[in-house]
Amino acid sequence: MASIKDVAQKAGVGVGTVSRVLNNSGYVSEDTREKIEQAMNELQYTPNELARNLFHKKSGIIAILVPSVEVPFFAELVHNIEEELYKQGFKIMLCNTDKEHNAESEYLDMLNRHIVDGVITGVHSLDVEEYKKIKKPIVALDRYLGENIPLVTVDHKEGGRIAAETLIANGCKKVVHFRGAIAVESPYHDRHYEFARIMKEHNVECYDYELAWNRFDLEYYEEAVKDLFQKIGDWEFDGIFGCDRVAIECMNEVIRRHRKVPKDVKCIAYDGTYVTQMVEPSVTAIVQPIENLARESAKLICDLVNGKHHKNKQVVLNVSLRKGKTTIV
Amino acid sequence: MASIKDVAQKAGVGVGTVSRVLNNSGYVSEDTREKIEQAMNELQYTPNELARNLFHKKSGIIAILVPSVEVPFFAELVHNIEEELYKQGFKIMLCNTDKEHNAESEYLDMLNRHIVDGVITGVHSLDVEEYKKIKKPIVALDRYLGENIPLVTVDHKEGGRIAAETLIANGCKKVVHFRGAIAVESPYHDRHYEFARIMKEHNVECYDYELAWNRFDLEYYEEAVKDLFQKIGDWEFDGIFGCDRVAIECMNEVIRRHRKVPKDVKCIAYDGTYVTQMVEPSVTAIVQPIENLARESAKLICDLVNGKHHKNKQVVLNVSLRKGKTTIV
Repeated sequence: MASIKDVAQKAGVGVGTVSRVLNNSGYVSEDTREKIEQAMNELQYTPNELARNLFHKKSGIIAILVPSVEVPFFAELVHNIEEELYKQGFKIMLCNTDKEHNAESEYLDMLNRHIVDGVITGVHSLDVEEYKKIKKPIVALDRYLGENIPLVTVDHKEGGRIAAETLIANGCKKVVHFRGAIAVESPYHDRHYEFARIMKEHNVECYDYELAWNRFDLEYYEEAVKDLFQKIGDWEFDGIFGCDRVAIECMNEVIRRHRKVPKDVKCIAYDGTYVTQMVEPSVTAIVQPIENLARESAKLICDLVNGKHHKNKQVVLNVSLRKGKTTIV
Repeated sequence: MASIKDVAQKAGVGVGTVSRVLNNSGYVSEDTREKIEQAMNELQYTPNELARNLFHKKSGIIAILVPSVEVPFFAELVHNIEEELYKQGFKIMLCNTDKEHNAESEYLDMLNRHIVDGVITGVHSLDVEEYKKIKKPIVALDRYLGENIPLVTVDHKEGGRIAAETLIANGCKKVVHFRGAIAVESPYHDRHYEFARIMKEHNVECYDYELAWNRFDLEYYEEAVKDLFQKIGDWEFDGIFGCDRVAIECMNEVIRRHRKVPKDVKCIAYDGTYVTQMVEPSVTAIVQPIENLARESAKLICDLVNGKHHKNKQVVLNVSLRKGKTTIV
């Protein structure tokens, strides 16, 4: 295999000049650069990337932590972040944290070991205090991790408001409300608080069902919906509000029990991933702008990796209502 | 930051001994190892992983190439491969190849640059000849890439047979058959050939609809189903066979046109990812054993990275029928 010395010799320049071209540092005339690149091509010279990373202390890799890429929301998010970071010259390392072992701290440790240049975290497992100790590039999705870690989120309160007002406008009086695990602090709970507040204000009865922490599999949602129906007994509801897949599962159970959607029961899903559009009837949804969440997270992590600092930075994006066939007005 | 020299000094040993512990190579007595580990802890010594990778020419990273992690099949596959490789001490780099730019060759190039130790590829974009040039660890999913690249696949022919016989047993006489793009060579076409063969043998009329290459998004499936209904005009079918999401979309269109599933139209999906179980009625499916596909791919890539060679290796797993509510018998 050709070495940097062979390239220098063939191009008739010094090794230092080749190194400047490789590392894109210092002045090299256009002519010389061309000569060197030609020599590299002819010799099929492949720079040893590991050696270059060592020199720069950069790996060109960003780690993305999500609970599970099987969840449609995270699948779409990871797909879009990968696309954005690819444009910026970064590759992504993917970690699902729904394992037994706490992989989250291991990935954060990789920041210190120069394996990854930055971390985008969409998980809620590790103690916030752990993050506060780290001074490396981290961007947080939907979770406040201290003033040095930029936060990307959506206006969940607005999402809760739109959902509540839409169900009220549809005449709902008794609503099932699936909530995230309260044990975990996150801006996304704001949708639940606002939803509950407005429902109370309008005297709409709500049955709150708290979902287990860190469970996102379909089997669990099936269990949860069965459990719900047992618990409510003959309390007959006319509205559903929950994240995409649990809302869909609850709607399907309603249909299996021979009640009509949207005539008897209205349904609004939260997140608005593709699954809400692949069921029949398609589900009205509060849509998170996943492409923009991905773009903003990618932009911020690139900033941090490139040495820019952000203090108390919060990017809050808007949600929107997409009408499906599970609501009437 | 503490250096390896500091660690050696504190532990009262030579730098070579510390290096042996770090690299887990050569004999070091238990006592000495403990002394060194204690010194590392006290000094908060973090080995420079990049330097170690350079020494070993190993990065501990496996790249996984899929068309798009948004597709449920690939989301489940990636999730499971990540879990398996994590147990073996590997991290994964994820690449979606449904970009404009041909990222596939770029990722293969990373093998040469020691950025990744191996590649598991589930994509069908690059020319097979490109792969034959590469002598590094590669495992192929559902695609024959030459005798040196192990292949992991399922018995697609059997899948086609089960689907055909199930629809025949259900009395279907006119069936819509969604096929993958024929331009791409893959073992998965075997299901189509076998399905078509058995249908013909039993005088079941089939309308073959060829899907576009490398399009896996829901928007495309909606277009395709609309296009199908325009093309068939008043040819009224009583059976559907296609991959999960296009089969579901076609079934939904049937329902929207006020025909009953499974009374008027039967439906069998291929892949059997979670989406077939989250729609109402749940869809009968030929199930690919995704967990086992992931396990076998992970095992083979670990073999190759660890220096084992495989020649003409093909792992062919069984598919199974999971009855949903879109078939009767």
